[in-house]
Amino acid sequence: MKYEVRFSGSGGQGIILASVILGTASALYENKETVQSQAYGPEARGGASKADVVISNKPIGYPKARAIDAMVCLSQKAATKYIKTLKKGGIVIVDSDFVELPENKKYKMIKLPMSSTTLDRMGKLIALNIVSLSALVTITKVVSHEALEKAVMDSVPKGTEEFNLEALKIGRELAEKSLA
Amino acid sequence: MKYEVRFSGSGGQGIILASVILGTASALYENKETVQSQAYGPEARGGASKADVVISNKPIGYPKARAIDAMVCLSQKAATKYIKTLKKGGIVIVDSDFVELPENKKYKMIKLPMSSTTLDRMGKLIALNIVSLSALVTITKVVSHEALEKAVMDSVPKGTEEFNLEALKIGRELAEKSLA
Repeated sequence: MKYEVRFSGSGGQGIILASVILGTASALYENKETVQSQAYGPEARGGASKADVVISNKPIGYPKARAIDAMVCLSQKAATKYIKTLKKGGIVIVDSDFVELPENKKYKMIKLPMSSTTLDRMGKLIALNIVSLSALVTITKVVSHEALEKAVMDSVPKGTEEFNLEALKIGRELAEKSLA
Repeated sequence: MKYEVRFSGSGGQGIILASVILGTASALYENKETVQSQAYGPEARGGASKADVVISNKPIGYPKARAIDAMVCLSQKAATKYIKTLKKGGIVIVDSDFVELPENKKYKMIKLPMSSTTLDRMGKLIALNIVSLSALVTITKVVSHEALEKAVMDSVPKGTEEFNLEALKIGRELAEKSLA
């Protein structure tokens, strides 16, 4: 079993932290081999950044993500750029407040109003990355919610734990509603 | 030109953040191709974690670090485990408060009392990762101090900017003193 996750969006949306937290959850709390990476090129300055997590039961020889099983898209530019990296039958979770992708039988698209819900319930967008991470975990079950919560607690600044737990709850509820 | 940097230490010392900041400095403020990654395996649970940054003038085909040019070691376990990954003639910067490595003509070792100095001047160890990052940049010049400072400002939580600038200063002074 090998599973490749890509977070995409624009700079400042916290996609690196989201991927680092998923890597921590997977490696430390699910005992999986995990490689987390981001490549920065000219595209990082153009509103399309990505951060990847490759999770496997076996040691990972080639660490770069190549056939994405599940992707989060928080910006239109990132969605347009990276949708082609999703493998056939893959899952793409888009922030429907800002991102539109054509319907396509090649992938399963899940549209969640993440920005508006985060802003509405938390008063700011700063935890959008955690909301999207929680939605991804709810939909893909790539790690357990328990592992995810521990990894979030390991990774966020002291004093922001409650705030980030609320973000996890919002992401989970949005995803569960969409799956229902 | 290809340059590989490895931060190593134990969990909770912030080595992933240090490497992410270096990656940001290099990619966004020096316009270099950059890949930042960490592989977590069983060793991550044993006090020896690593986070790598590969910097190049050309697109990076194979993203994993293989011959480390410069390494930071913040724990003895990490130093013992990863010293063999340093390439011949490479630089290893150790926290001399906690880490001891044999003298060896194969590498250049720089011993800095980073923990004690950080604790002494900042009252806590939380910014040890930033101190070590600043020391590494001062010694290797892999990015400019200006690029590093911008990347730190991009990456640390709001309200901690001054604190982290002070950490940059401590790391730079420690390194300059050792080079003098």
